[in-house]
Amino acid sequence: MISQAEIRLDTRGRGTYDITSDVQAAVREAGIATGLCNVFIRHTSASLMLCENADPAVMRDLEAFMSRTVPDGDPMFTHTSEGPDDMPAHVRSVLTQSDLNLPVRDGRCDLGTWQGVYLWEHRTAPHRRKVMLTVQGD
Amino acid sequence: MISQAEIRLDTRGRGTYDITSDVQAAVREAGIATGLCNVFIRHTSASLMLCENADPAVMRDLEAFMSRTVPDGDPMFTHTSEGPDDMPAHVRSVLTQSDLNLPVRDGRCDLGTWQGVYLWEHRTAPHRRKVMLTVQGD
Amino acid sequence: MISQAEIRLDTRGRGTYDITSDVQAAVREAGIATGLCNVFIRHTSASLMLCENADPAVMRDLEAFMSRTVPDGDPMFTHTSEGPDDMPAHVRSVLTQSDLNLPVRDGRCDLGTWQGVYLWEHRTAPHRRKVMLTVQGD
Repeated sequence: MISQAEIRLDTRGRGTYDITSDVQAAVREAGIATGLCNVFIRHTSASLMLCENADPAVMRDLEAFMSRTVPDGDPMFTHTSEGPDDMPAHVRSVLTQSDLNLPVRDGRCDLGTWQGVYLWEHRTAPHRRKVMLTVQGD
Repeated sequence: MISQAEIRLDTRGRGTYDITSDVQAAVREAGIATGLCNVFIRHTSASLMLCENADPAVMRDLEAFMSRTVPDGDPMFTHTSEGPDDMPAHVRSVLTQSDLNLPVRDGRCDLGTWQGVYLWEHRTAPHRRKVMLTVQGD
Repeated sequence: MISQAEIRLDTRGRGTYDITSDVQAAVREAGIATGLCNVFIRHTSASLMLCENADPAVMRDLEAFMSRTVPDGDPMFTHTSEGPDDMPAHVRSVLTQSDLNLPVRDGRCDLGTWQGVYLWEHRTAPHRRKVMLTVQGD
């Protein structure tokens, strides 16, 4: 059995957005008890990750790490047509995930206690982002 | 056909652990000839990777690279409740993988000659880690 | 329904190679309308990524970023038997992807407008690379 759904998210600009409950809702609606849930982002300047969902400081520290490792406006970058955060957004996306594949057990994504599913917006301006969900199983 | 299994691994602290034979055993037991094997770690301070399995120096060099890139006790990090390796463990996990998806052919994961499946413990203290395996196919 | 195919690519050395049309062709031949396409590289010194497919400067900037972050010949590396680009190729592979999992809709990978599928050769010398495709669905 296969079921597909789309999540649309209007971001407020750079930062992380918890989409765990949207993913769990789609799995529930798919009516699949055992299988896998593929989460796929249709963009190259925003990405996905699984991360600790308890302390907001984790997200701030991740953002600080990425800002230092892939600095906006780095003179090394030549692809700057959309601004100083354009190329860093692509690099950040390549260093994280465009797809996540989560085991489904007993009708829900069987995440660890502290695991949340996040969309990471890497552009500084707000964007409309589309995430495809494909649930496969019995 | 879908089959799920769980691997439990007690780590001795930071380092890499070869779980290739556990993954291959689960695929064998699933009795699936053609399909995919999803490997999923239910933690945010340990991760998965595929890497060269012949020379132990590769693992030491990977560890050295990560220690330099994401230093323990970096003053930039504010999420330090569990110690100087707490936030680096989350960053290292985000930069590597929480799930791997391996083609199954002729009843086994069709890895390249030098590819091994590794669990990477990022915390310095020993931890019990759970890895879910989902094999789907015919 | 499951279908597997292999892509062979002779690289000209370090750089990115667009394999989007090969992947789409394999999905078309599989005759699967709805499902997932797994793309898997059977190597540990070349990797996969989804990235912006419009401006070639993006690929040059990505290469420049990786060359600075994981420098060839870094004295930290001890696994140097195959040359100064040997260990950096493994690190670059670990920081990017060995497998991609793309939603299939209406008989093709449902990528975003600017998303291309790339093989990233990290060795400086030419290599023959094998990529496995597994398409699952209805």
